[in-house]
Amino acid sequence: MSATLYWHRPSVARDERERLNGHRACAVWFTGLSGAGKSTLAHALERRLHEAGCRTFTFDGDNVRHGLCSDLGFSADDRHENARRVGELLRLFVEAGVITLAAFVSPYRADRARLADRIGRENFFEIYCRCSLEICEARDTKGIYRRARRGEIPEFTGISAPYEAPLAADLTLDTGTEPLDACAERVIALLRSRGVLDAEGSPTG
Amino acid sequence: MSATLYWHRPSVARDERERLNGHRACAVWFTGLSGAGKSTLAHALERRLHEAGCRTFTFDGDNVRHGLCSDLGFSADDRHENARRVGELLRLFVEAGVITLAAFVSPYRADRARLADRIGRENFFEIYCRCSLEICEARDTKGIYRRARRGEIPEFTGISAPYEAPLAADLTLDTGTEPLDACAERVIALLRSRGVLDAEGSPTG
Repeated sequence: MSATLYWHRPSVARDERERLNGHRACAVWFTGLSGAGKSTLAHALERRLHEAGCRTFTFDGDNVRHGLCSDLGFSADDRHENARRVGELLRLFVEAGVITLAAFVSPYRADRARLADRIGRENFFEIYCRCSLEICEARDTKGIYRRARRGEIPEFTGISAPYEAPLAADLTLDTGTEPLDACAERVIALLRSRGVLDAEGSPTG
Repeated sequence: MSATLYWHRPSVARDERERLNGHRACAVWFTGLSGAGKSTLAHALERRLHEAGCRTFTFDGDNVRHGLCSDLGFSADDRHENARRVGELLRLFVEAGVITLAAFVSPYRADRARLADRIGRENFFEIYCRCSLEICEARDTKGIYRRARRGEIPEFTGISAPYEAPLAADLTLDTGTEPLDACAERVIALLRSRGVLDAEGSPTG
């Protein structure tokens, strides 16, 4: 047998990917009521980071529930499994060097704490999108609050199921009243202060 | 209510990520017997692509079975669900603009065809790592062939379960006899010819 039979495995490490990208990888987790603007903020932030040359990706119900978690419903067990898989997904994207944004209602503190532990506290930033139920319900972009009020959606967060606000979020944004630009800027400032992005220079000058 | 209540969503599209990265995204799927060198080749290829400035990630049993698919065993149903999730994972990474390498035995043609369909034929390259059972068994880096021969692993591919070789792989490599460097070069040439990488210049000159 020749030496070619015994190949070694030169894996690319996360810090090498980070050096190539020019920024650290992390998970930015947006939590809050349906309609609070989590997904909109995540996508707006991603747009800014992308235009500044960062490697980014955004997860929300749309690209997870229809694909990876399409076999899951909304029972307690299925919600738990959904959260577990999203956590594993984020781990992989962070390992890949990506600034990974995730917008999920994620109403339970214990679930968010588990995620942070699994992804690594140093890689995980919890952003509380604080917005009154009144404003969320007035927006009702998907018509789900109307359906929830009619009793068509059991255990709907804010109506018939609890939302546990973060006790020590990395950042709290009043997404019902603060402009989108200002909210995005505050997340970028957080990422600078935590060393994900350089303190000076790009992104956003 | 102010105008800030109605935010729009400026998503970053895959082709924008690809422009930022300087290469197209795709899934490169390595199939073959256990011990054929799939994972080693994927990691060696990733090393080259990374050093040429490409955004890459490699999946194999190690980082999928222990995380995202840790709830699954090896029954037919669980193998099927495992394959489905890996497919969804690859879709997301390709959407994120990454050259995504995947090394799995994946013994069934129908499963590989399903993967290609789900990820998109134009994004999917099947690489057959052709290596005789004798060489794989002589390598037996993980000691699993010895265990399979003792009957400790039911339905072990190549011993007690079939391996269906690709009928029209994008590339067939004799990973039992060709040197690693040559195999990696041939995959890079394929990626060039299919427009994932520029025809000239980096990577690998």
